[in-house]
Amino acid sequence: MSTNQPPKTPEEWWSTSIIDMKPGSIRIRGYAIEELIGRVGFAEMIYLMTRGELPDPAAAKLLEAALVAAVDHGPQAPSIAAARMAVTCGVGINNAMASAINMLGDVHGGAGEQCVALLNSIASHLGGDPTERQIAEAVETQLRALAEESHVPGFGHRFHPIDPRAPRLLALVDAAAAGGAVSGRFAAIGRALEDALASRKGRRIPMNIDGATAVVYAELGFAPPLCRGLFVLSRSVGALAHAFEEMQSGERNKGPIPRHLLWRYTGPPARALPDGA
Amino acid sequence: MSTNQPPKTPEEWWSTSIIDMKPGSIRIRGYAIEELIGRVGFAEMIYLMTRGELPDPAAAKLLEAALVAAVDHGPQAPSIAAARMAVTCGVGINNAMASAINMLGDVHGGAGEQCVALLNSIASHLGGDPTERQIAEAVETQLRALAEESHVPGFGHRFHPIDPRAPRLLALVDAAAAGGAVSGRFAAIGRALEDALASRKGRRIPMNIDGATAVVYAELGFAPPLCRGLFVLSRSVGALAHAFEEMQSGERNKGPIPRHLLWRYTGPPARALPDGA
Amino acid sequence: MSTNQPPKTPEEWWSTSIIDMKPGSIRIRGYAIEELIGRVGFAEMIYLMTRGELPDPAAAKLLEAALVAAVDHGPQAPSIAAARMAVTCGVGINNAMASAINMLGDVHGGAGEQCVALLNSIASHLGGDPTERQIAEAVETQLRALAEESHVPGFGHRFHPIDPRAPRLLALVDAAAAGGAVSGRFAAIGRALEDALASRKGRRIPMNIDGATAVVYAELGFAPPLCRGLFVLSRSVGALAHAFEEMQSGERNKGPIPRHLLWRYTGPPARALPDGA
Amino acid sequence: MSTNQPPKTPEEWWSTSIIDMKPGSIRIRGYAIEELIGRVGFAEMIYLMTRGELPDPAAAKLLEAALVAAVDHGPQAPSIAAARMAVTCGVGINNAMASAINMLGDVHGGAGEQCVALLNSIASHLGGDPTERQIAEAVETQLRALAEESHVPGFGHRFHPIDPRAPRLLALVDAAAAGGAVSGRFAAIGRALEDALASRKGRRIPMNIDGATAVVYAELGFAPPLCRGLFVLSRSVGALAHAFEEMQSGERNKGPIPRHLLWRYTGPPARALPDGA
Repeated sequence: MSTNQPPKTPEEWWSTSIIDMKPGSIRIRGYAIEELIGRVGFAEMIYLMTRGELPDPAAAKLLEAALVAAVDHGPQAPSIAAARMAVTCGVGINNAMASAINMLGDVHGGAGEQCVALLNSIASHLGGDPTERQIAEAVETQLRALAEESHVPGFGHRFHPIDPRAPRLLALVDAAAAGGAVSGRFAAIGRALEDALASRKGRRIPMNIDGATAVVYAELGFAPPLCRGLFVLSRSVGALAHAFEEMQSGERNKGPIPRHLLWRYTGPPARALPDGA
Repeated sequence: MSTNQPPKTPEEWWSTSIIDMKPGSIRIRGYAIEELIGRVGFAEMIYLMTRGELPDPAAAKLLEAALVAAVDHGPQAPSIAAARMAVTCGVGINNAMASAINMLGDVHGGAGEQCVALLNSIASHLGGDPTERQIAEAVETQLRALAEESHVPGFGHRFHPIDPRAPRLLALVDAAAAGGAVSGRFAAIGRALEDALASRKGRRIPMNIDGATAVVYAELGFAPPLCRGLFVLSRSVGALAHAFEEMQSGERNKGPIPRHLLWRYTGPPARALPDGA
Repeated sequence: MSTNQPPKTPEEWWSTSIIDMKPGSIRIRGYAIEELIGRVGFAEMIYLMTRGELPDPAAAKLLEAALVAAVDHGPQAPSIAAARMAVTCGVGINNAMASAINMLGDVHGGAGEQCVALLNSIASHLGGDPTERQIAEAVETQLRALAEESHVPGFGHRFHPIDPRAPRLLALVDAAAAGGAVSGRFAAIGRALEDALASRKGRRIPMNIDGATAVVYAELGFAPPLCRGLFVLSRSVGALAHAFEEMQSGERNKGPIPRHLLWRYTGPPARALPDGA
Repeated sequence: MSTNQPPKTPEEWWSTSIIDMKPGSIRIRGYAIEELIGRVGFAEMIYLMTRGELPDPAAAKLLEAALVAAVDHGPQAPSIAAARMAVTCGVGINNAMASAINMLGDVHGGAGEQCVALLNSIASHLGGDPTERQIAEAVETQLRALAEESHVPGFGHRFHPIDPRAPRLLALVDAAAAGGAVSGRFAAIGRALEDALASRKGRRIPMNIDGATAVVYAELGFAPPLCRGLFVLSRSVGALAHAFEEMQSGERNKGPIPRHLLWRYTGPPARALPDGA
């Protein structure tokens, strides 16, 4: 902070490499917006905005698959419930969507980001063309470094014995790897993690949506915080669809449980204020 | 509210037509998620989630173009500035994105929604295959109904003499209309609005991004609140890209102006507390 | 916007009459912060910040009573439920509080603001020292102007036959009016509204918390948007207390209903993707 | 999670010790709301809601002083700027306040919480009636445990050589300790920290508002996350006052810098889309 550089002007304070504007001209990462519109897809635009370059077609297709996969998991998810509740409270649909997204924190929205970090960490111990055995060893080393009882992000699901989204995404990664579009290294690490967990726990704990999208995003080279961001973009679609559906219900101030039910009170019994208060 | 219907169970309280789940199975609008992944694009998934059915390819392409068009307009927009500020405050990237989206209110994010409502209102006065003259008359009727000085949403731009995104989107609508994929009626209404405004104001007030995306969304039959929602999905990409870029800066508690500048104080001069306070 | 004034500097762009700062000095509305600390109460500080001057003691006491009254109405309120849900999602307690506050919109948090506007509108038709009859007539005129079936904000409660907070707040206003600290005019209008509604509906629809706080805030001269703001400050206390309590539970991703329950699905039956998709 | 307990009913799922309700009755921590209104102050109500019991008068006075101290630090703070920006975007004043609060994360709003945790950690190494020397040693031990270059939360200010709020709050703690209302132990630890930092850095790094409120809250026994929450309650007053002031300006979509300024673009030069895109 205390440098000999001259203080920044407001224009320098707000600098960006993402977008350039002049009257009548908008350029994204150097490309004129009117050239992008109609020629690149939404998933490609997401890639360009966050990465700085356009993806090749196979990468775009993988990104698109991951974005499709995570749009919704129903109103039991706090984020989606919040979108539905908010829209009955007399706020704009953008505020309802923001309320949903605001809940996609480390626990609700962070497993993908954490899993990418884990995959990257394992990969950093591997050389150029690792064998299955080298991968398994790197996985074991990493798992031993985790606390014994710690949860491994991206594996296991409280509801789905097998998360139907995961094998489908993995198959798409395999196909892309077979075509040379991605390395396939992170899919291999993910499967090795699944095997290592199975041998530790005595039962398979299959990769879930967070693990499978993490494999996709790691193969595509997205930095971990962007992986949370991509999940937010995806789940925002669910927030919008659910907010709009709830908007049709005419419900007002929709709480979590129907109005004829009350919560359970567990506090002190009725009492009088102390004298002097 | 006071009906003779039995009170809802919690399951009925949380009902939806969007997603069905069983252990190992997730269906969106009836389609198995593993069939959707890899076969439908992200824009198509957005359409399916919000509309209940898959779009035809021409509709998907138009939706994709509109989503691409609105991703960013730079850090002078309060939403994007908020995303950059928030991420330096020690919150998650989802919270930064929510802070941005929360600002896309009636003024910042509502012009598209308002313009679709205006287009629909004009269209509701037209028969099956209206002439240019009938469209111009319906536009005039509608404009006379607006207060004299009122702003017409979707036209004019404080910065761009011509918003480069608008003619490009209109050209895509024209092409889709020529192919019979959309009616082209709302593009015609939009242009008639532009003409009517020009003759009133004595200078052209060209359609802007909000007007052009409104034409696209009206052609595709999106309800007005969904149009705000689609804008939110689009601008969320900008929020993510800018939040991530700012995250690299190492800045802490980034305020609107550089630290060596202070705001201008316009309140009462220094004074002492009254006795007795 | 298009004026002949020179463009604002960034310092002018961020001007305020609320706070002045120099190194080592912070003044609020002209008062040194170190003089305010320990000598004015929190409610007085809220008044000073929002109104520009310190309240007299009777006004401070009334404001304090209204702020105390509205802190909580239980986890069935969407705002409070949202605070509890959010804090289990891995976000900061400030994000959980923001999620709650974000839901205090026109429907959930706006009745007080709307009721103050209604009280002010009725009062604007009254002279200096109105009789009960003049008040009743002004109320009738105003009610006739409202649509027949419209809801009158601040009256009636879905749960409480009599909202225990309302008569208590009214009694405090009466006492302040008897002492000359406030006019009592808005309490009289509020009661006249209650009478008029009773004669229209054939049953009493008692003033609720929103109506009673509106009477307090109108007596104190708060502008309507500030009334929503004061409610937000008050209910934020509930959001904090509930978020903190939930934080102790160890729950993760707390949704609206227990995990063994699922929502009811009302959409299309299982179907296959169309060929070509 | 996998227990032999029967699954929770929705009422059990939403249980709380804070508030009990029956038709016509609201009890907070056992006290009837109509008894609390008018008899306890807002700061006392905050204490009751978050702690479960009413504070004694000296504790209430200290809490009130800390809440008064932190209401505002001007529009250079990202939170306050966000409130002002949001309210010009066409959202409710509650949404503007939520946008501000959402930015009070670990960096912008967390120093008080972190400082309380530090004070508690040092105190946990001290016996019943520690000497100054024992306190200094416990402080040294703790500081040695921190990484060499790490920032100590609650000390130093980028703008104020001495933060005028800190010595005033400390003086109030001293007075309360002299009267036996609090132990004074945390004020002593805070001062010992200041001394230890001075001897390490060769210049005094005075306690700031976060440090001084942390001393107050630690003396009062607030858990660290509640300290962030109390700061949120306090700064929400600033968010409200600034949002309301900005609302009067008529500004629309207020960005961080005046409209005639543009940000600095640092990305790739203008380029054409590659063939095939």
